[in-house]
Amino acid sequence: MKRDLAVQTRAKTEFLEITMFINEALMEAGVVDGVVHIGALHTSCAIVLNENADQGLIWRDLFELLDTLAPADGSYHHGDGNAQAHLKAMLLGSEKTVPVRNGQLALGVWQGIYLAEFDGPRERKIVLTLLEEAP
Amino acid sequence: MKRDLAVQTRAKTEFLEITMFINEALMEAGVVDGVVHIGALHTSCAIVLNENADQGLIWRDLFELLDTLAPADGSYHHGDGNAQAHLKAMLLGSEKTVPVRNGQLALGVWQGIYLAEFDGPRERKIVLTLLEEAP
Amino acid sequence: MKRDLAVQTRAKTEFLEITMFINEALMEAGVVDGVVHIGALHTSCAIVLNENADQGLIWRDLFELLDTLAPADGSYHHGDGNAQAHLKAMLLGSEKTVPVRNGQLALGVWQGIYLAEFDGPRERKIVLTLLEEAP
Repeated sequence: MKRDLAVQTRAKTEFLEITMFINEALMEAGVVDGVVHIGALHTSCAIVLNENADQGLIWRDLFELLDTLAPADGSYHHGDGNAQAHLKAMLLGSEKTVPVRNGQLALGVWQGIYLAEFDGPRERKIVLTLLEEAP
Repeated sequence: MKRDLAVQTRAKTEFLEITMFINEALMEAGVVDGVVHIGALHTSCAIVLNENADQGLIWRDLFELLDTLAPADGSYHHGDGNAQAHLKAMLLGSEKTVPVRNGQLALGVWQGIYLAEFDGPRERKIVLTLLEEAP
Repeated sequence: MKRDLAVQTRAKTEFLEITMFINEALMEAGVVDGVVHIGALHTSCAIVLNENADQGLIWRDLFELLDTLAPADGSYHHGDGNAQAHLKAMLLGSEKTVPVRNGQLALGVWQGIYLAEFDGPRERKIVLTLLEEAP
């Protein structure tokens, strides 16, 4: 199975669906039951499970909420200018685990998997690990 | 092992302990060391590890805190009326992983596993996956 | 592999790097690909992936942000005096999963693993579980 994923974000902040890339990787793995772990190798973006309908407008609400907590023009101790991105990434988390059944993501009807970019545009590296259920 | 769990929430917001359902499922699995993954198939509830004592009052504090961040009567871009629930679910996360030792949940004395309902009452589906430790 | 880790925190709030302890445990496990699950057996501290450079100043920003959400002198329903710690722990989460490749943590250049203490000083117990990738 393909285990190293790279995606290119296009803006400072972006909500990028990655469900299809993970499904593609799983297709190579065959019929397996278990989970897939999705880990971003970064500290200024997050991996999020979220509603995949409504033209993605929930991400605007999310980013506005996070901006009230960690404003882009806030005053921070952290020195490299992207403290706001680190804080948002920590609140949402940079890794998630999703069940797999019959070799496919076992998601709810409305669930999608997203990379939440807070300090783009950048190339983001994501590591996938497939784990098989105990017999 | 039983891998599909359905629980019925009874109110708009609710903090429902599910530790015992997961323990029951594990009893069928026998003596195994590893982890169990607990994933909700929804985007408007969360799975949370939290204190199981004090008559559950911490959940009131949690829900009040989340209400200040995403008020029920707030103004949102997301159109289906439950943006507040999606936002809260993303902040807490809809899946957790818990260690298993000798076929039982390896939780701290005060830890319990909860479903945090933000858009009930609903039937909530939870997928359990048992993974065995590497030899 | 060593599966039970105990660390001593030294202050009420502290951001303690634990990456090296997990690397040490992995060294005993040999060359394996998969993930390691890191679970704290507590409800008033968190496990966090975060930037490991900049003399750790991002943790001050994080703790200040969390203090605005759950002030130490706030008024809470929860009765044992550490509601603020439980709330912060729930927002960040008490467990994380990290990819392992060739027996080593597959972290990004800037990623470290931390225990975020919100109710110290205490001895904190962490359970490590190594899971091997599906063949």
